[in-house]
Amino acid sequence: MQRNFFIILFVTAICTGNAQTTITGFTPDNAKKEIALEKAFEGKLSANNLDSWMQRMSAEPHWVGTEYGRQNAEWIQKQFKSWGYDTKIETYHVLFPYPKIRILELTAPTTYKAKLTPAAVEGDKYTAQGDALLPSYNAFSKDGDVEAELVFVNYGVPEDYEQLEKLGIDVKGKIVIAKYYGSWRGIKPKLAAEKGAIGCIIYSDPKDDGYVQGDVYPKGPFKNKTGVQRGSVMDMPLYPGDVLTPGYAATKDAKRLKREDAPTLTKIPVLPISYEDAQPLLEALKGQVAPETWRGGLPITYHIGPGPAKVHLKLEFDWQLVPAHNVIATMKGTDFPDQWVLRGNHHDAWVHGASDPVSGMVALMEEARAIGELAKNGEKPKRTLVYCAWDAEEPGLIGSTEWVEDHIKELQEKAVAYINTDGNGRGFLSAGGSHTLQVMVSEVAGTVTDPQKGVSVKERKIAHNRIDGGSDDFEIYAVGSGSDYSPFIQHAGIASLNLGYGGEDSGGEYHTIYDTYPNYKRFKDPDFAYGVALANTAGRIVLRLANADVLPLEFEQWHKTVSSYLDEIMKETDTLRKTVEKHNKMVDSNTFELAADPKEPFVKPEKEEAVPYLDFAPVQNQLASLKSSIDTFESTDKSNLSPEKRNKLNQELMQVEQVLTTEKGLPRRSWYKHQIYAPGFYTGYGVKTLPGVREAIEQKDWKEAQEQITVLAETLERFNRHIESMNTL
Amino acid sequence: MQRNFFIILFVTAICTGNAQTTITGFTPDNAKKEIALEKAFEGKLSANNLDSWMQRMSAEPHWVGTEYGRQNAEWIQKQFKSWGYDTKIETYHVLFPYPKIRILELTAPTTYKAKLTPAAVEGDKYTAQGDALLPSYNAFSKDGDVEAELVFVNYGVPEDYEQLEKLGIDVKGKIVIAKYYGSWRGIKPKLAAEKGAIGCIIYSDPKDDGYVQGDVYPKGPFKNKTGVQRGSVMDMPLYPGDVLTPGYAATKDAKRLKREDAPTLTKIPVLPISYEDAQPLLEALKGQVAPETWRGGLPITYHIGPGPAKVHLKLEFDWQLVPAHNVIATMKGTDFPDQWVLRGNHHDAWVHGASDPVSGMVALMEEARAIGELAKNGEKPKRTLVYCAWDAEEPGLIGSTEWVEDHIKELQEKAVAYINTDGNGRGFLSAGGSHTLQVMVSEVAGTVTDPQKGVSVKERKIAHNRIDGGSDDFEIYAVGSGSDYSPFIQHAGIASLNLGYGGEDSGGEYHTIYDTYPNYKRFKDPDFAYGVALANTAGRIVLRLANADVLPLEFEQWHKTVSSYLDEIMKETDTLRKTVEKHNKMVDSNTFELAADPKEPFVKPEKEEAVPYLDFAPVQNQLASLKSSIDTFESTDKSNLSPEKRNKLNQELMQVEQVLTTEKGLPRRSWYKHQIYAPGFYTGYGVKTLPGVREAIEQKDWKEAQEQITVLAETLERFNRHIESMNTL
Repeated sequence: MQRNFFIILFVTAICTGNAQTTITGFTPDNAKKEIALEKAFEGKLSANNLDSWMQRMSAEPHWVGTEYGRQNAEWIQKQFKSWGYDTKIETYHVLFPYPKIRILELTAPTTYKAKLTPAAVEGDKYTAQGDALLPSYNAFSKDGDVEAELVFVNYGVPEDYEQLEKLGIDVKGKIVIAKYYGSWRGIKPKLAAEKGAIGCIIYSDPKDDGYVQGDVYPKGPFKNKTGVQRGSVMDMPLYPGDVLTPGYAATKDAKRLKREDAPTLTKIPVLPISYEDAQPLLEALKGQVAPETWRGGLPITYHIGPGPAKVHLKLEFDWQLVPAHNVIATMKGTDFPDQWVLRGNHHDAWVHGASDPVSGMVALMEEARAIGELAKNGEKPKRTLVYCAWDAEEPGLIGSTEWVEDHIKELQEKAVAYINTDGNGRGFLSAGGSHTLQVMVSEVAGTVTDPQKGVSVKERKIAHNRIDGGSDDFEIYAVGSGSDYSPFIQHAGIASLNLGYGGEDSGGEYHTIYDTYPNYKRFKDPDFAYGVALANTAGRIVLRLANADVLPLEFEQWHKTVSSYLDEIMKETDTLRKTVEKHNKMVDSNTFELAADPKEPFVKPEKEEAVPYLDFAPVQNQLASLKSSIDTFESTDKSNLSPEKRNKLNQELMQVEQVLTTEKGLPRRSWYKHQIYAPGFYTGYGVKTLPGVREAIEQKDWKEAQEQITVLAETLERFNRHIESMNTL
Repeated sequence: MQRNFFIILFVTAICTGNAQTTITGFTPDNAKKEIALEKAFEGKLSANNLDSWMQRMSAEPHWVGTEYGRQNAEWIQKQFKSWGYDTKIETYHVLFPYPKIRILELTAPTTYKAKLTPAAVEGDKYTAQGDALLPSYNAFSKDGDVEAELVFVNYGVPEDYEQLEKLGIDVKGKIVIAKYYGSWRGIKPKLAAEKGAIGCIIYSDPKDDGYVQGDVYPKGPFKNKTGVQRGSVMDMPLYPGDVLTPGYAATKDAKRLKREDAPTLTKIPVLPISYEDAQPLLEALKGQVAPETWRGGLPITYHIGPGPAKVHLKLEFDWQLVPAHNVIATMKGTDFPDQWVLRGNHHDAWVHGASDPVSGMVALMEEARAIGELAKNGEKPKRTLVYCAWDAEEPGLIGSTEWVEDHIKELQEKAVAYINTDGNGRGFLSAGGSHTLQVMVSEVAGTVTDPQKGVSVKERKIAHNRIDGGSDDFEIYAVGSGSDYSPFIQHAGIASLNLGYGGEDSGGEYHTIYDTYPNYKRFKDPDFAYGVALANTAGRIVLRLANADVLPLEFEQWHKTVSSYLDEIMKETDTLRKTVEKHNKMVDSNTFELAADPKEPFVKPEKEEAVPYLDFAPVQNQLASLKSSIDTFESTDKSNLSPEKRNKLNQELMQVEQVLTTEKGLPRRSWYKHQIYAPGFYTGYGVKTLPGVREAIEQKDWKEAQEQITVLAETLERFNRHIESMNTL
């Protein structure tokens, strides 16, 4: 190998923006071809297709197991077939609860029976489909019949329980009512149960996505008083996918856990409700007034309770085994058929799902159609493309997870990367995932024109960052969970991306009966211009990954990012140490008692264990070594490699993300193998970077923190050896 | 003079807290006597007196000019007389508007007539006094009859208008509706008029002091839907006091401005309303949704307008010349009759004023009664005490201002200090004023026991600070305006303090018909323990100032504080410079356009004038010189001074605060003479420290900023010469 060539490419790529003439991973000649190809690709994209396909797919509710869901899958398959793809439907048999009985009533000091029924609205016929609409509920709540005093717990996240403890309020034996937002919803019943609550109600406060945010549907896009967010509450931070087949595919004859043994079902019954139904319950609470930041937008004084409000919650589900139909469409690569570029979006929805997921699905389809046309004209991809339309994402990433678990060996061998999309709307490009792909995504973002402003979507994104006081660079975020990339990156160690536009499309329709085509057309992306932009962005990424001479993974940005995570953790540990020191000093000096209002309940805080100094050196040393091997890698010219060596290098690059996983996975949740990114055990969707170390520190488990530092250092050491071995090619 | 003695005293005082045996300003022998005296004083204080006096004074509404107000003044006079004081009532004749016509109605797109009538509540007979209650209005609004489209302007403060400008919204020719809070109320019509509005409505949003904060009256202390905050809107930052006699006393025959020439009347009509009356108006607004931080607690989407809501506002006042009766009670000093310790609280209220001002007034009276008893037992003060019960504070500090203007020469010669109180309640000591008095107040706070916690009020205050992440030291705040200290410190240059307890007494009764005795007893200070604590605190301060061998002014704390103000201003100037640079760069790079949502109105921001580097050196050099002369002053033993020299030193100390004023006063508002503290021209009550320099910078008037730096440096130079001259005694 010789130095030089790639540096120049890299620098040029960054400087030229829209007028790009070089691309990371391509020789100059092939870059020219690729640029022409992408231009041709872009020319084939049509907004009309997105529009008519959305109307078709979101005409009726199509959650997993429905007839319309099956029809959608078959229709998708048919489309792909017509575009020249090899298609199949891979079906798994997964546990899915349908709500049979839902009763929520206030039984004291007055009575109120929750309506649990959304209103049909004028101008949106889809909201009037009555019994065809899936009743509002939280999937994978256990059955239950409980009655107890009510306690308001704000968002129901860890710091809320810390606050309750300070106020001397215990939820043991109570039913909690929590607001949506503040964490992924599944955390709320999980924590409530850990704290001893026997039931959980979740409601959408108007402050978060109702009238406080803007006019409500149908006048505006926000949640009206009857809207209810459905959603899964399975314990996804433990493992996603079918609850009865952890870590393996839910094939027809798979051995299944008994339902009562499934660890990802909730421990207590949980039901989501509207703010119309929540208000009488909250109004009936007395006791302390909720802290300022807890108060929502209802015209009441928010009290915490417990009681005198008492509620009765009864839930019974029909626990069905339903088929989840994944559509898999393949276009074989001309040169490297065993190197797969994977691209996916789910097709199931809670109700009509115009925005979630259909807006992303139709963009994926239009992209696949255009690539199919190119192929028909002889412009076939060098690597194999695998387009996936997942079923059962909504109840817990089930379709994709079962498929990844089913094909994990082959995937770990053949996958180049997985590109995910989901709902999409008007606004700014947001890209998350593996930081080895940041440079490539940034280059692509520089070539896609923003439909509203005429500059590149990268330029517009950076302008948006700047207004928010953020970075001047194009950066991708670290992924937690929340869509189908999770099994790819976190379980199988496949480099992944999650792409979408948004930020000028806010509303309260998420997982309600109001996520319909008319709503989407009025408030999300009226002319599907951002749907086309998404197809354009993801399609270019797919084409680059498919045709690159050397896979466009880059490690300097990766190193910078991972180093910043370590810095963050070290700083947070120092801050925590100081906070604990200050806290303990204040406990010693009776500061809390002296400052407390004697007319309010007061619980004297206890002294906390001092935060030890952790030895971060093993990770720091590995990052230092990595810096030098990465410098070597990035400054080495790869253009003169023989085809064999280049192929060998690409094979190694395909393994890179897997080197960042460990067989053992994270403590207490071995399904999660990745050592850089994971969803938070107590945040759900929210990412925790360097999760082993970070979560141990956050949980103040110093022994585990030090052990996880070792695990991380070993992971980075393997990663370093992998880079070094590529350097010797 | 010799060094040593005072340092030791000072250090000891700080270290011993409650068990104080030395006091700043006293020789060891006299300190012992003073400690015994204060103990005797404390022993005479009785909560019962406060309770019964409050019932008497707040039995009926007693705003300036009322019969009950006059009776209260005479009754107060009688009490002081019975306690051995020389008393008189000094009456001024001041302009006071009584509301004759108040009409507010929504005229389009629907109609609504504002009720403007508060509800009587069960369990509080005072709220049922009907016509005897002063109708809700803003005193010194001009008469007017206007009709126009409505615009919601948040709090109606400068940054709100900046935001409106960004959103492309102009209030010219409109009527604005602003929330109470965010600034002193008078700023709202002042700014609205400057921006071209023709009328102003102010309402109390439930988020600020209604149901969002807690249960509403009578269930809890917060504002119910009919409550309206009255209050003055005269342009007090220009000058307070009688609007027709700026800078001189409103005696019977004084030459008066014509009302139409009075500069402190509002330029547009303004009316305060309840949230019950505000909701239909706000609900009728369309246009852009208000920014997140603007939204209140009503169950509506807050739109900005303008229109389609249109309102008609008609106001007519009976512009009366009414008598303001100040009660002045004097106890001549035995040793220094021409050195006056002044102590005041107002007695007029908007309605019953149990909290504001009676809770402070009864504490002042009990303090004066106890001191009177001591005097009868032969323990007379060495200096003269002047107790003042002000009338007409509510409409604009009128009683105190006219009195100060009337007696300014004598006051500037004889006043040692002025100690103010106003409303009082359960909670933490808060002390503001001249930082030369900080050490003395801190020592006193160390000797007063908190009625709830048994530690000193100083210790409790520091605990409270710590919880808020604040200072570990006892500090006094800088005063702006809002009570009767203003003419003393800011106009006459008399060292002043403003004292009160609070923080565990919040509610929404301020200036409403609900500020009654039953409300106070339930929610403010049920057993008057903090009323007694206030009497104890202020009384000890009065006694120390009256009996000190050397007046207990201290300059190190003053220097530290003033230096911190300069640092603050310098940092803010640097921050402003960077902000402007960044802003201009973003304008140049089209960042704002690129990030803006094209579906929302967009006004391209203009480039701003670069912030020059100001020469702060003149002030810095003076502060450096001051540091050294203050070091000398504070390390000098004053215990061996001859009586003549000590008296000379005290005379010089009495002049100290005046040296910090200038004859010319602040730019465009010469009534305000003080160069360290002033109410903000655009904040009202809120203080601006080093106001000449700070406000010029905030207004981006760089020429004036540099001129004001010179003025400030010259002031500090005079101050330095004054200290040096004391050092040569």
